Amino acid sequence: MATPAQALSGVTPEALPTPSLLVDRARLARNIDRMRTRLATLGVPLRPHVKTAKCAEITRLMLAGQPGGVTVSTLAEAHDCLDHGITDILYAVGIVPAKLDAVAALVADGAHVTVLLDAPATARDVASRAAALGLELPVMIEIDSDGHRAGLRPDDPALVEAGRILDAGPGTRLAGVLTHAGDSYQCRSASALEAMAERERVCVVGAAARLREAGLRCPHVSVGSTPTALYATRLDGVTEVRAGVYVFMDLVMAGIGVCSVDDIALSVLTSVIGHQHERGRMFVDAGWMALSRDRGTADQPIDQGYGLLRAPDGGPTPDAPDALVVTATSQEHGIVTARDGAAVDLSRWPVGSRLRVLPNHACATAAQHAGYALLDERGRVETYWPRRGGW
Amino acid sequence: MATPAQALSGVTPEALPTPSLLVDRARLARNIDRMRTRLATLGVPLRPHVKTAKCAEITRLMLAGQPGGVTVSTLAEAHDCLDHGITDILYAVGIVPAKLDAVAALVADGAHVTVLLDAPATARDVASRAAALGLELPVMIEIDSDGHRAGLRPDDPALVEAGRILDAGPGTRLAGVLTHAGDSYQCRSASALEAMAERERVCVVGAAARLREAGLRCPHVSVGSTPTALYATRLDGVTEVRAGVYVFMDLVMAGIGVCSVDDIALSVLTSVIGHQHERGRMFVDAGWMALSRDRGTADQPIDQGYGLLRAPDGGPTPDAPDALVVTATSQEHGIVTARDGAAVDLSRWPVGSRLRVLPNHACATAAQHAGYALLDERGRVETYWPRRGGW
Repeated sequence: MATPAQALSGVTPEALPTPSLLVDRARLARNIDRMRTRLATLGVPLRPHVKTAKCAEITRLMLAGQPGGVTVSTLAEAHDCLDHGITDILYAVGIVPAKLDAVAALVADGAHVTVLLDAPATARDVASRAAALGLELPVMIEIDSDGHRAGLRPDDPALVEAGRILDAGPGTRLAGVLTHAGDSYQCRSASALEAMAERERVCVVGAAARLREAGLRCPHVSVGSTPTALYATRLDGVTEVRAGVYVFMDLVMAGIGVCSVDDIALSVLTSVIGHQHERGRMFVDAGWMALSRDRGTADQPIDQGYGLLRAPDGGPTPDAPDALVVTATSQEHGIVTARDGAAVDLSRWPVGSRLRVLPNHACATAAQHAGYALLDERGRVETYWPRRGGW
Repeated sequence: MATPAQALSGVTPEALPTPSLLVDRARLARNIDRMRTRLATLGVPLRPHVKTAKCAEITRLMLAGQPGGVTVSTLAEAHDCLDHGITDILYAVGIVPAKLDAVAALVADGAHVTVLLDAPATARDVASRAAALGLELPVMIEIDSDGHRAGLRPDDPALVEAGRILDAGPGTRLAGVLTHAGDSYQCRSASALEAMAERERVCVVGAAARLREAGLRCPHVSVGSTPTALYATRLDGVTEVRAGVYVFMDLVMAGIGVCSVDDIALSVLTSVIGHQHERGRMFVDAGWMALSRDRGTADQPIDQGYGLLRAPDGGPTPDAPDALVVTATSQEHGIVTARDGAAVDLSRWPVGSRLRVLPNHACATAAQHAGYALLDERGRVETYWPRRGGW
């Protein structure tokens, strides 16, 4: 389907419809370079997570100088990668046997798919179904390094039990261990991030050691989250790092201290559609449909509401830099106020004027849109890049 | 694009991929009948809001027995309606002049589009741009009946001023007044809802009277919100009612008391993908990507987390009816616990078993999906209905 943004390539963002999702190429490139440089220093390759951008063109940029494998969170992302010639795919959400027919279809089309699980019973069911489908499926075991979500603790006897089942095959083979330090999003200092990265490393390297002590091969040891990837001081024993949100960065990452607000490459272009003079607030056409309902900064020291306002060129808003936020949303309305409760100078923002909104959580905001208007270094629309949503 | 659900028509939901968005035809029909019957009793036609379902097939069901006009929240919805032969379209989000080129394109394709604004300056700019485009655009003035969002108070002198500008044309004509009692979502009793509906009516009918006293025509007087539409006891002076979420209903509506949990026609089919035995909780493959980040029940007497669990057939979960909720989400993971903090009986829900999640907010959850798997009265997949997202 042709999009308005496609038709408008080469124009200034002022001619884009609103709301539109914008990506600044210069900030995108800077964020990608920063992660590449950081991991090169530590001597570990990146397996970028495509779940944030879900866009083949952006995945290609993330893969520059890397071995070429990716991480996905949906089978739709896997199909999109394969459609664009990327074959080494780690599907990093716990697998269930019913999804193996879809995995087999990807494999038949040339993909090398690795799946994830965290229990002996699941390993047994997956091995059985994979064998019936004629697969010899590489499987990672998920390790819980922070109590955040799924995974086995490294000292759980179920780890070696699951490893033995996967190793015995015939439908599976043990590919390694994987962890995600989701709790790193709760860190508030560089030293806390460094400690979290080290804890993530120690847990998963320890789990690999236990499997190897049991006589099992454990070739891959995978860690990942944007904060720990950027703050790890050593990655001994780790074979790959996964990260996704670093490509855009967002207000949650800025709140943790992982980036500055000026590093955020993703924004939603919006129009002022109304004023409420007696309360000194204004309405924009970016509601939760365009911004998402994510309130990830609500528990951070600086609550950014549903997003921080920027001028149309991406710089701070005049007179009130870093002070205007989307305080409330309905489906297609955002209510803009000053963060400190002071009235907005509405005369600066007549109905029809444009603003940008920086996202709390890039993954969530990007998910509300079908694609990206890419802005070049002069701020002109360079092209339109579609996203691949769904499952 | 072919979807898995399309390929699976006629099968049981067990064969659908997860997560998938389900609609129960029987509940859908019941909700539509209820609104139709209620408004027929009050003698006022419905202009259904398509923003909830964004699906032409569902819009057709909502339009049965009604004049045929719809309400939209985006130009994409307007295009989808026009593609399906629906021409009377009210675009009920404040217009800006830059969007009038797109409106003119719809009009050129045969649509009768009415737009909305709430300030004399905007009326002037819209009239000027509409005239330049050769339009004679019907315009509604938005009235603020509850301080919830946009609109003019009925006693604001700007109301008659805006009316005169629109009436003078040549690009515009005054079509009427419109209000949305968004604050009705805060009501907690039938009497509060009745009072809110009456306040909505009095405000907008009063605004129409002021315009008429000033010698202006004000043919249309439009009110709407699902709670006030269902609880209004009289609608004298009102010419149409707008409502959208009633078609699916959701946990927020159940929390207000507008429907029962069993009336909710929309759910997300999900698979159990893991267990955390020591905490008695389980993981499902419906995270915020499938459910949305909406926490609309957080401030209600019963907090439903990110959604209430149902058995695969849509009935209450065995042993723990109305007690299991999605307590936390990441992108593709939902964490399920008992609402009272008690451990879930994980033996009942092995990895790979299926559940449904009822949404807090139907508009937000549906927005995360490309379409609906429609279930017939026997619970089999009848067909797949696509949604029209974007702007």
